[in-house]
Amino acid sequence: MNTVDDLTERELIARIQARLPPPPDWLLVGIGDDAAVVEPERNRLDVLSVDALVEGIHFDRRFTPAAAIGHRALAVNLSDLAAMGAAPRLALLSFALPASLSCGDFDAMVDGIAALAVHHRLHVAGGNLTRSPGPLMIDITIVGSAKRRQVLTRRGARSGDDVYVSGSLGGAAAGLQMLRSRTSTTTTATDTNGGYGLKPNEKVVEACVQRYLYPDPRVRLGLLLGRNRAASACMDLSDGLGDGVTQIAAASGVGMTIEAGVLPIDACAREWFSAHGGDAVTAALTGGDDYELLFTVRPRQRGRLRAASRHSGVPLTRIGVCTSDRALLLRYDSDGSWTDTPIPGGFSHFSKT
Amino acid sequence: MNTVDDLTERELIARIQARLPPPPDWLLVGIGDDAAVVEPERNRLDVLSVDALVEGIHFDRRFTPAAAIGHRALAVNLSDLAAMGAAPRLALLSFALPASLSCGDFDAMVDGIAALAVHHRLHVAGGNLTRSPGPLMIDITIVGSAKRRQVLTRRGARSGDDVYVSGSLGGAAAGLQMLRSRTSTTTTATDTNGGYGLKPNEKVVEACVQRYLYPDPRVRLGLLLGRNRAASACMDLSDGLGDGVTQIAAASGVGMTIEAGVLPIDACAREWFSAHGGDAVTAALTGGDDYELLFTVRPRQRGRLRAASRHSGVPLTRIGVCTSDRALLLRYDSDGSWTDTPIPGGFSHFSKT
Repeated sequence: MNTVDDLTERELIARIQARLPPPPDWLLVGIGDDAAVVEPERNRLDVLSVDALVEGIHFDRRFTPAAAIGHRALAVNLSDLAAMGAAPRLALLSFALPASLSCGDFDAMVDGIAALAVHHRLHVAGGNLTRSPGPLMIDITIVGSAKRRQVLTRRGARSGDDVYVSGSLGGAAAGLQMLRSRTSTTTTATDTNGGYGLKPNEKVVEACVQRYLYPDPRVRLGLLLGRNRAASACMDLSDGLGDGVTQIAAASGVGMTIEAGVLPIDACAREWFSAHGGDAVTAALTGGDDYELLFTVRPRQRGRLRAASRHSGVPLTRIGVCTSDRALLLRYDSDGSWTDTPIPGGFSHFSKT
Repeated sequence: MNTVDDLTERELIARIQARLPPPPDWLLVGIGDDAAVVEPERNRLDVLSVDALVEGIHFDRRFTPAAAIGHRALAVNLSDLAAMGAAPRLALLSFALPASLSCGDFDAMVDGIAALAVHHRLHVAGGNLTRSPGPLMIDITIVGSAKRRQVLTRRGARSGDDVYVSGSLGGAAAGLQMLRSRTSTTTTATDTNGGYGLKPNEKVVEACVQRYLYPDPRVRLGLLLGRNRAASACMDLSDGLGDGVTQIAAASGVGMTIEAGVLPIDACAREWFSAHGGDAVTAALTGGDDYELLFTVRPRQRGRLRAASRHSGVPLTRIGVCTSDRALLLRYDSDGSWTDTPIPGGFSHFSKT
């Protein structure tokens, strides 16, 4: 089996280029020079983010197919642009490759990136290749564009704004648990749906596995929320709902009360946690990797919000409200009486992020 | 001793921010949101590059002080902008930190980046922090700007153009050898000039060590070469002169003949290699890390070239000529007779880059 160590840097770059569509007109100098040269979009701001996936920290190669590693590395970055209301434009790919990585896995990883990039009309403008003495690492820089008045930040929430979340929560956390529980050290990840040894009656939970492996960043929804000014503040849920609530509240100077009973828990996650003794609400609060958008909306903008949901095809759920007292509370409603508990998961230790 | 593992991600970000100057007006959203938002410079193109330094591949923490690791991580990126004739604007810093990294080393690394950034009027707009299960990694994305007609690429060399190199070569390779030869596994790197146990008569070689640890990217020279259109093609020498010659020749479709006798070998490198049995010309050809500029010049543009040298304060040496026959030759001149040998170091194996 050939590994990346059998190839020259130029051969690896050629394999990447062979997997990419032709460059657009605005990419004046692309892969192969000291830097990329790009024509800025007229009357737009540049929106830039960088995010790394590190083997052993963010993924486990024993149960994460190479295509999913590539997909996820780009998805986390697309999700950051979505949270800002920016349209994706270009990416720079920086790989640190262990010598043992097979050429097949390298190709599949790049295919995973390329497929998602094409779907979101994002172009790879350059990057960097280096060896790694240990873990596989993919660090992606993404650049998008947005009109000045359409940028979404974490800072705009006000007391009285409603709190919304897109899609569903907890599915990726359940999917990760499923993959871990099925993985022995001898198992090799495969790229087919049937590769996890699922019994037929477990097919429903495959949705969670796919949710973890191939997250769908909410790029179109973010663009719509920025364009029609429906959201007052926005961020993406890469580190769980608890972290998201804490970050928007801190940046905006508000508190939030979230209703536990209305959280849109993924159906397969609910089933998995009820069967395995876990708590789906805790998974939604502390489990990362859902890559949904958390955002706040002035009550009078609900009409715009419905339009954004309709045009993006993404269901939106009102999960709480912003308050003036800075407290972050999770409200359980039981037979008409409320219990409030502090929201966990805000100030995560570096070693646990 | 505190390590980065004792701190939260937010505390580490606060330590970075405390080391940076206030953000400029054009940085509309900086550190702390999902992405940075930047106002593009009017009538300029964006120039973007990414480069990673990986522990065990690009540096050895036993003899590389943390400040030098930070300095070098940014210098390699500034050098890429210099090679394009672009003015530095902003950087995104992506760190993968081993749990054992001391807070003092983290701070010193960021200080090394910040000092070089301030010197080149570059602003840190954001980044990413993650744990590493092993090696320390710094991946920096840099963004600069250039006018359309002033961008330098590798593609513009023509047969008959002269080949130039800035500054001097081989010094960093000699410095790295010196550091390696003095390092036992028990030695700890320090940040003072006197920390390498130099004997007084070895002070001259300290210049090479500094050259390796704190390279000075040729940003101003690159800008001048682009602005007055003196250079027809340009790249930076991160992987040695042999690689540079190969890359420009391939991109431009020319050959090159380089005169070994006129190569501007660093004085300390010449002394080191003559005392230790190495070959300074080979070090210049194959040794990386000099971060000088290699560029080609139409003969009629020599006046502009002198102006660029004068205004940048960087000496420039004519080292050869572009030819039409695609051969890459190193010419040794001995008593009036020539010997040509093929230039090594072009197609480096991935495992050796």
